[in-house]
Amino acid sequence: MAATTHPPTPRTTSGSLPKTMRALIKSTAGPGLTLVTDRPLPSGSTGKPGEPGPNDVLVRVHKAGVCGTDRHIYEWDDWAAGRIPVGIVTGHEFVGVVVRVGSAVEQVKPGDRVSAESHIAPGHDYNSLIGDAHVARNMQILGVDRDGIFADYAMIPQSHIWPVNQDIPDKWAAIFDPFGNAVHTVMSAGVSVKSVLITGAGIIGLMAVAVAKAAGAQQLFVAEPDPRRRELALKLGAKKAYNPLPKDKGGQGDDWVKEIKSTVQGEGVDVLLEMSGNASAIVQGFRAMRQGGTAALLGIPSKSFNFDITEHIIFKGADVLGINGRQMWQTWFQMERLILAGAVNLDDIITHELPFEDYNRAFELMQSGEGIKIVLDLNGPTR
Amino acid sequence: MAATTHPPTPRTTSGSLPKTMRALIKSTAGPGLTLVTDRPLPSGSTGKPGEPGPNDVLVRVHKAGVCGTDRHIYEWDDWAAGRIPVGIVTGHEFVGVVVRVGSAVEQVKPGDRVSAESHIAPGHDYNSLIGDAHVARNMQILGVDRDGIFADYAMIPQSHIWPVNQDIPDKWAAIFDPFGNAVHTVMSAGVSVKSVLITGAGIIGLMAVAVAKAAGAQQLFVAEPDPRRRELALKLGAKKAYNPLPKDKGGQGDDWVKEIKSTVQGEGVDVLLEMSGNASAIVQGFRAMRQGGTAALLGIPSKSFNFDITEHIIFKGADVLGINGRQMWQTWFQMERLILAGAVNLDDIITHELPFEDYNRAFELMQSGEGIKIVLDLNGPTR
Amino acid sequence: MAATTHPPTPRTTSGSLPKTMRALIKSTAGPGLTLVTDRPLPSGSTGKPGEPGPNDVLVRVHKAGVCGTDRHIYEWDDWAAGRIPVGIVTGHEFVGVVVRVGSAVEQVKPGDRVSAESHIAPGHDYNSLIGDAHVARNMQILGVDRDGIFADYAMIPQSHIWPVNQDIPDKWAAIFDPFGNAVHTVMSAGVSVKSVLITGAGIIGLMAVAVAKAAGAQQLFVAEPDPRRRELALKLGAKKAYNPLPKDKGGQGDDWVKEIKSTVQGEGVDVLLEMSGNASAIVQGFRAMRQGGTAALLGIPSKSFNFDITEHIIFKGADVLGINGRQMWQTWFQMERLILAGAVNLDDIITHELPFEDYNRAFELMQSGEGIKIVLDLNGPTR
Amino acid sequence: MAATTHPPTPRTTSGSLPKTMRALIKSTAGPGLTLVTDRPLPSGSTGKPGEPGPNDVLVRVHKAGVCGTDRHIYEWDDWAAGRIPVGIVTGHEFVGVVVRVGSAVEQVKPGDRVSAESHIAPGHDYNSLIGDAHVARNMQILGVDRDGIFADYAMIPQSHIWPVNQDIPDKWAAIFDPFGNAVHTVMSAGVSVKSVLITGAGIIGLMAVAVAKAAGAQQLFVAEPDPRRRELALKLGAKKAYNPLPKDKGGQGDDWVKEIKSTVQGEGVDVLLEMSGNASAIVQGFRAMRQGGTAALLGIPSKSFNFDITEHIIFKGADVLGINGRQMWQTWFQMERLILAGAVNLDDIITHELPFEDYNRAFELMQSGEGIKIVLDLNGPTR
Repeated sequence: MAATTHPPTPRTTSGSLPKTMRALIKSTAGPGLTLVTDRPLPSGSTGKPGEPGPNDVLVRVHKAGVCGTDRHIYEWDDWAAGRIPVGIVTGHEFVGVVVRVGSAVEQVKPGDRVSAESHIAPGHDYNSLIGDAHVARNMQILGVDRDGIFADYAMIPQSHIWPVNQDIPDKWAAIFDPFGNAVHTVMSAGVSVKSVLITGAGIIGLMAVAVAKAAGAQQLFVAEPDPRRRELALKLGAKKAYNPLPKDKGGQGDDWVKEIKSTVQGEGVDVLLEMSGNASAIVQGFRAMRQGGTAALLGIPSKSFNFDITEHIIFKGADVLGINGRQMWQTWFQMERLILAGAVNLDDIITHELPFEDYNRAFELMQSGEGIKIVLDLNGPTR
Repeated sequence: MAATTHPPTPRTTSGSLPKTMRALIKSTAGPGLTLVTDRPLPSGSTGKPGEPGPNDVLVRVHKAGVCGTDRHIYEWDDWAAGRIPVGIVTGHEFVGVVVRVGSAVEQVKPGDRVSAESHIAPGHDYNSLIGDAHVARNMQILGVDRDGIFADYAMIPQSHIWPVNQDIPDKWAAIFDPFGNAVHTVMSAGVSVKSVLITGAGIIGLMAVAVAKAAGAQQLFVAEPDPRRRELALKLGAKKAYNPLPKDKGGQGDDWVKEIKSTVQGEGVDVLLEMSGNASAIVQGFRAMRQGGTAALLGIPSKSFNFDITEHIIFKGADVLGINGRQMWQTWFQMERLILAGAVNLDDIITHELPFEDYNRAFELMQSGEGIKIVLDLNGPTR
Repeated sequence: MAATTHPPTPRTTSGSLPKTMRALIKSTAGPGLTLVTDRPLPSGSTGKPGEPGPNDVLVRVHKAGVCGTDRHIYEWDDWAAGRIPVGIVTGHEFVGVVVRVGSAVEQVKPGDRVSAESHIAPGHDYNSLIGDAHVARNMQILGVDRDGIFADYAMIPQSHIWPVNQDIPDKWAAIFDPFGNAVHTVMSAGVSVKSVLITGAGIIGLMAVAVAKAAGAQQLFVAEPDPRRRELALKLGAKKAYNPLPKDKGGQGDDWVKEIKSTVQGEGVDVLLEMSGNASAIVQGFRAMRQGGTAALLGIPSKSFNFDITEHIIFKGADVLGINGRQMWQTWFQMERLILAGAVNLDDIITHELPFEDYNRAFELMQSGEGIKIVLDLNGPTR
Repeated sequence: MAATTHPPTPRTTSGSLPKTMRALIKSTAGPGLTLVTDRPLPSGSTGKPGEPGPNDVLVRVHKAGVCGTDRHIYEWDDWAAGRIPVGIVTGHEFVGVVVRVGSAVEQVKPGDRVSAESHIAPGHDYNSLIGDAHVARNMQILGVDRDGIFADYAMIPQSHIWPVNQDIPDKWAAIFDPFGNAVHTVMSAGVSVKSVLITGAGIIGLMAVAVAKAAGAQQLFVAEPDPRRRELALKLGAKKAYNPLPKDKGGQGDDWVKEIKSTVQGEGVDVLLEMSGNASAIVQGFRAMRQGGTAALLGIPSKSFNFDITEHIIFKGADVLGINGRQMWQTWFQMERLILAGAVNLDDIITHELPFEDYNRAFELMQSGEGIKIVLDLNGPTR
């Protein structure tokens, strides 16, 4: 078992850090990831490993979530090949403990348990300056555009650090990032006392079911081909879950769209939350949405397709929202509130926890569909 | 000249109406329109010509605007062939005078000068009941789905009648319908103290320039191939007007998009008002819009095309609004307010006034590009 | 027992209506109400008893809710003495069955089960025309400004008739009016994933607890002096219910305000829903609300008081909403959706059902505090 | 002339700063301000004069605006006596040039021309973290709660520094603070194609006239007792300016309220911008506002008064907004856009420019009403 060959980098006091650390890197321009043990510690604005610049925070990573994005990087698909710099440390969802802070850091101190906003906005652009950093240009994503957090240590700007409430378990804090995608999508669309369709019950789609239920959705439908995920969607609060595949592939064709339309005042749902990125699901979703409805689009189609804006947007009088990341820090407070109120239970979605060294198994579980959310354990519990 | 052969149906007191009237009808499933003189007067819920049902208003039409939609019907393009019932009276923009009212009509009386909302919503559907009749399902448009107003008389439900303020000239009141499209688009997007790009300076696009200026837009750009319309856009308040055609067709290619982006904080415009329905302009427009911007889409592409929702909506964090008709009656009050405050001058856009009988000339002027907004005179001034 | 002396006016076919009916009227300018049996049937725009005008609907009233407003009229307080015309039929909350319809009525037919929006807007004013009839000037309220529904028959304009969904029980439909106040207040403020304080757990305050919970409130606090109502608030979904009275009157003084502030990120609640109309509760409520919070005010103070707009609105950066009635018909669809989804249970709030003749007992129960919502039975079940 | 006795602290390179500087301080708990020349340079988080902490910016002040708040401090009224720490450097509106920056400062460098947001939010509170720092608790205002900018040098956190666009004149940049109040109030209320009443044409009220006009207000009314300011309001874009004083004091009593109501569809204005802080003007303003209107309150009443929330908020269905400061940085971008588009001309409002030493004259001009906005010159032009 891999764990014996790659022991965790030793926990140290703030006075003595190791020279190198374990890190899961993209070592070549092809499939797979490599776990190295001799990665120098990350450096911030100082350029010196392990030494934070004035506004940097050095964090020891304890648990990390594996994202669909990580799988794209692992499988080295076209998107990954076009974007990911070879040699990068991957990963962007985590919980950890502050080890060292820069001279100007005031919000956290060594020992604090933290997570982070993984989308690092430049900070001086227009959107960042008006409080919409989540749609900033030239965003750098941890583990995508710059070194990430599948490693014993990560260096994060204090502006992107989120102190984790003491009543939230480590593994939940480790997946704030996708949970935040779900919360931001649901809250952007607005679901309170509305009928809602979620297309795609992947990790974020399933979280969105739970969040939409907690946020006041009254009729919650899900479209998802995988029967196990449909079942989980029902458990999490969906009223009905449909198989949107064509009938000759075992699905319900377009019948479910008609059923939704007949159910909801003969009009269709108020709100579409698109979580699949699947062209056919997107079209079905818009058809199931009522005139004047709101569609929030999070799922990324792998390539562009013939989308009839006349039918789906203009004549529909639709309001269509493009969703990115999470709002800083509105979404994070909402996540905290939902968890502390007991309104969502992320354990339903975390199917596996694996040692860091078993990362290949994590991707296999995702590929087989057996795993939904998988959390890697790098350095044990934070406390 | 046609006027001698088709004299206006005589003005009558409410006690004596003619049996028939002039009407511009779609007499065959092919190009052209036919001016008939023996059309029975319209009937409302009573089914009897000239006799209003309890909530109907019989209006004598004085002036009528010619719309791009009318041109589609005149030219009998695919859209028209697929939608327009042969035999229908065409036209939907007008000003007239109330002649008879039904027993339950309280808002207007014979002699009142009126225009009307041409999109007749069923009234009992969900959107109508929540105050969003402009996006109702099963909308019937005057002159498209039911008899219109290119005729001496029209029957209109009182719920869709708009009394015209006495200080507004006839020919302006005759084009409330497209003016309302412009106002509704501008106000839906919100342009106050924002930078705005309008793609397409047709009738509604030009009106939108004037409206956006009046509504508080601070940097107003226009993209339009026709030099005369670009010039008019500048006169109406645009800061710059670009030719968006490819360079080999005499336009500026994509250079203007770059220029707009460099002008506005290096980001692009806050708001896109899409008035062209042209696929290439739509794509350019989205590219010229900043991250997190708002796009209001009014122009109808003639067919669906490959629209990259990932680039233009999702990663852009855009808010995309499908725009239809006019809000009842919010948009109409806004039109009235803009006109009475002297904030817009529709004479800049009305290039021709022609006698009813010269309708063929009106369409020729539109086809040649010489005419922008053309108003037909059916029965002289209302007063 | 009164029931024997005042038998219900006989149910009739649409062909034969009785000449007179039972009605609870304000017969003199003083306390009390009088049940008469010889009231002529209501007349609409025709002026003839029992004969609807073109847009009128004659309804046979089956069940009716007793409102706090009715109690003011019963007790003849200053407000009632200043507003209520002597001789009026009182009452405004009901469910009934359509008996006759005017010639232009299309939405309902005899036999349909209906309720109605009791605030009759003139229809031609600015707010009605832009879809905000709930804040129209010159509103006429059923049973306040014009004859109401504590009677066997009522005449209602079709524009204010609401067809009741078949799956909703009579007694719930009979109290759509106050339920709509609660829904409109909650939805105007917006409570989804927010912390909320409701000051005042009267009928509407208690309904607001259930609605806010269903609409996605995550931390729901209630301030209410009556221990039984506090208990009911907890049952309906409040997290904590406080006694806001001074300590020397057995309450918690201002301690509860401090507790709420310390609970919610040290800031106070996001949203205040003011349902008490009590000056001291209003001030406490604003103090418990965070900087930048939203306050929706429904409760009517009996007289004006020294309200520090500097502290409570300006320096607080608050958004303060004045709430009236219900939005037509947005609020009504929301009510229906909440009920059909099983998200609220109005049986928790309806403490008593009494025969029409026992109306005095109804007011006594309200005065003693023993009754919360009381429904009068005029003509038995609707089906 | 005072200038000879208090020569400006010499301009220095970043390598050599003077030990002391001129500063206008509140030296005793009573009326007046004292110009000292031996004030040590300000210190930031380092505690050492003239030495910025990592995120501090040392600015040489060139021009400074005199605010109504400064006058309260000068006159030592109850508010000032209760809040201002004796010994403080006063002033908060300015333009200057960066002299030194801390080690973590990236946004500006020595030589840059800057202004600053004077409301220093703690940064870690809830509102700051969700992008609403302008309503943060425990705000510290420059020149009110901590040393201000009536001095040769000021130390400002980089998070509050605003780089000034090169096309904006010094004296306009010196009054971004009150201009931002006006912009924030206007934009919070939303005035595009609306009718607007501004009560109080002081410095900010007058700016609000210009801003509301530019932002798309169509009918703009002003109420102001001072005839010269009414005249200036008309010049800046108001349609009518009324004297709201009682008739026996030469004003129009309540007649103007009636006139506004009759002007605007018989309803009253859509939007009230309250800039006077005068109890009677506030009440008149609310009365002149239509049902369902929006009121944005900026003016601070000197003491609380009997405000009838039933009449003015609840039954009016009003939306009442408490306004503070400026939104970071949305408001600042809006100011820049309005100025660069030529939509406002602040020279109309700046009546006097005086040497720093003539500060007593500045307050006298304000007290007499002769001066509207007065700008002090500390160190000449920035370039």
